[in-house]
Amino acid sequence: MRDVAIVGAGMTPFGELWESSLRQMFADAALEALGSAGVDHLDALYVGNMSGGQFVGQEHLGPMMAEQIGMSGVPAMRVESACASGGMALRLAYLEVASGQSDLVLAAGVEKMTDGADVTAVLATAADQETEVYHGITFPGLYAMMARAHMEERGTTLEDMAWVSVKNHRHGALNPKAQYRREITVDDVLGSAPVAEPLRLLNCSPVSDGAAAVLVVPLDRAREFTDRPVQVLGSGAATAPMALADRADVTRLEAVRLSAERAYQAAGIRPSDIDVAEVHDCFSIAEILCIEAMGLTDGCNPVQAAESGYTALGGTRPVNTSGGLKSKGHPVGATGVAQAIEIYEQLRGEAGDRQVEGADIGVTQNMGGSGASSVVHVFRRG
Amino acid sequence: MRDVAIVGAGMTPFGELWESSLRQMFADAALEALGSAGVDHLDALYVGNMSGGQFVGQEHLGPMMAEQIGMSGVPAMRVESACASGGMALRLAYLEVASGQSDLVLAAGVEKMTDGADVTAVLATAADQETEVYHGITFPGLYAMMARAHMEERGTTLEDMAWVSVKNHRHGALNPKAQYRREITVDDVLGSAPVAEPLRLLNCSPVSDGAAAVLVVPLDRAREFTDRPVQVLGSGAATAPMALADRADVTRLEAVRLSAERAYQAAGIRPSDIDVAEVHDCFSIAEILCIEAMGLTDGCNPVQAAESGYTALGGTRPVNTSGGLKSKGHPVGATGVAQAIEIYEQLRGEAGDRQVEGADIGVTQNMGGSGASSVVHVFRRG
Repeated sequence: MRDVAIVGAGMTPFGELWESSLRQMFADAALEALGSAGVDHLDALYVGNMSGGQFVGQEHLGPMMAEQIGMSGVPAMRVESACASGGMALRLAYLEVASGQSDLVLAAGVEKMTDGADVTAVLATAADQETEVYHGITFPGLYAMMARAHMEERGTTLEDMAWVSVKNHRHGALNPKAQYRREITVDDVLGSAPVAEPLRLLNCSPVSDGAAAVLVVPLDRAREFTDRPVQVLGSGAATAPMALADRADVTRLEAVRLSAERAYQAAGIRPSDIDVAEVHDCFSIAEILCIEAMGLTDGCNPVQAAESGYTALGGTRPVNTSGGLKSKGHPVGATGVAQAIEIYEQLRGEAGDRQVEGADIGVTQNMGGSGASSVVHVFRRG
Repeated sequence: MRDVAIVGAGMTPFGELWESSLRQMFADAALEALGSAGVDHLDALYVGNMSGGQFVGQEHLGPMMAEQIGMSGVPAMRVESACASGGMALRLAYLEVASGQSDLVLAAGVEKMTDGADVTAVLATAADQETEVYHGITFPGLYAMMARAHMEERGTTLEDMAWVSVKNHRHGALNPKAQYRREITVDDVLGSAPVAEPLRLLNCSPVSDGAAAVLVVPLDRAREFTDRPVQVLGSGAATAPMALADRADVTRLEAVRLSAERAYQAAGIRPSDIDVAEVHDCFSIAEILCIEAMGLTDGCNPVQAAESGYTALGGTRPVNTSGGLKSKGHPVGATGVAQAIEIYEQLRGEAGDRQVEGADIGVTQNMGGSGASSVVHVFRRG
């Protein structure tokens, strides 16, 4: 397999983008990515999207989006793995370029969530319909159960979880593309409305619109398009049982652990090599579970990693410098690609006030449902 | 890229499978495919599915289906390109094995359409929501417009279109897995209820449940699993504008032409090399348009190919020996994989009463929407 690099990136701001449509957001992000690399044609397009059909009545996004950027004819398809759809689109682009089949592949993600659909009900279709959803479970409910189990078994507190949100809002306040660019306090989190005990509103990522796209090419052609390519060192994907009740331990995210292990092995790195990471903090407890499963906090209890500053900007291993899903926003199909863009900018030294000095190796981790699917990518400054 | 082969296949009967669920159908097909090859593990799983979210409230089919066959952990994702979802799943499995990333990849498709959803409305989400569906268009309406244009420009008659259905029902009557195993006459078609002028009910493929799966491996390992592998010689995919109004000519399927050209080139064949083909006859006019775009009827007008017997069993180049979507059934996400299974069986000499004697090279063509996406595969007896 060939070595692979990212040489262009584009994304919309994340937020409630009333003035923009699914196709317009996609086009804005995709054309920015192509323009940044000076590219006017593609060999293939992958569109990560969780639920265009349920959110806005639109499936079949491959040909639609190819047409939106003037590239009808190009092979294009949608890929879906719930909230990990964007990360899976990147994985497919990586594999297609690595295989030698294609040279110029766009990996994109897009979601339009604010057009009137019952968002909680649509998102719940990423859980097990027959054994979970039918009985009334929603995603805040599922993560609340995971949080409660973690509190029981590991002594995790509401304050520990609040710190994840506080840290990520501090980061997001520095990100011009973030949905919520303001800092919050632990008291703000603890005092916000209960959503599903023990989760408060400010433990939960928001409902968002947005799109993101990256251009994937063979490493040996990367400098045709940019003088600062970022190599994709490895990709790892994994699954776990859909329903919490079918898992051996609901306080462990087995798909996250396995996908990280596979990505690290493919990349030839250890977790201690990682300088900066974007992980899937759809709820505060998810960031704690993910950094633990990925081995990101050696020597530091992942439960206290946010409060201690270990995972904050300026700390040992900053996590979610973009603001994460919590502050940057979470247009579900776009999230995995937006994570890659944050790492791309970090490794190019373009992250502005969020820059992690000297960042050489970064990772992204994107998760579907309550952790039934996960995909991890490892990147290195080119 | 490595050479690739199919070494196992499984599918449910197609029909109104009231007694089976989305996950059960998948498991039946997948376990049959794995069992036929004597395989008990996988490196990856691709699930083609158009609209689990809208049909039965279930997205995120990658991890769910991996779990159903006892393989939680395996990388798994869903791919969607409307009614071409199954063919795109096969394409991804082909690329992943060809790349060297994986050795054992299952390409599957599944759809549960009869559980009470408004099927016509769900299918319409594969058309352009803003410029077509909003104005009341459905798929029978879109194909009716294509048929009417073909009648005007090319002199195609209702009888010509009826013969496509008659031929495919003759074939399907010989297929134990087909939804409608009975022959029909031209008069039956012409006398059936109008659906969207000029289309009659018997010009339209049915609403179906079903699943299909094939096991894809490197050619150089194929004989570990079967003594009659079928090589995947090439894969081609393409797109075209979503909306009919955006196409230069609605009587030509440009994505089909382009995907076939790419697949033939990858495989190193010409259309005249093809012994048997499965094409996407979602409506009678579609088969006529597809065989024309693929160049399957050299020396014979594609409009009269069914009536003349050119594309019938025993003819020069049999098309849709399975019964096609019309008679075999059309569980949309499963169709592309089921097409590959028909060709797999033909090239192994296992097609029973439908056998095309001496078949050496076969093709499948699977299409999304009104032709905005298409994927073609070329196969050769191993």
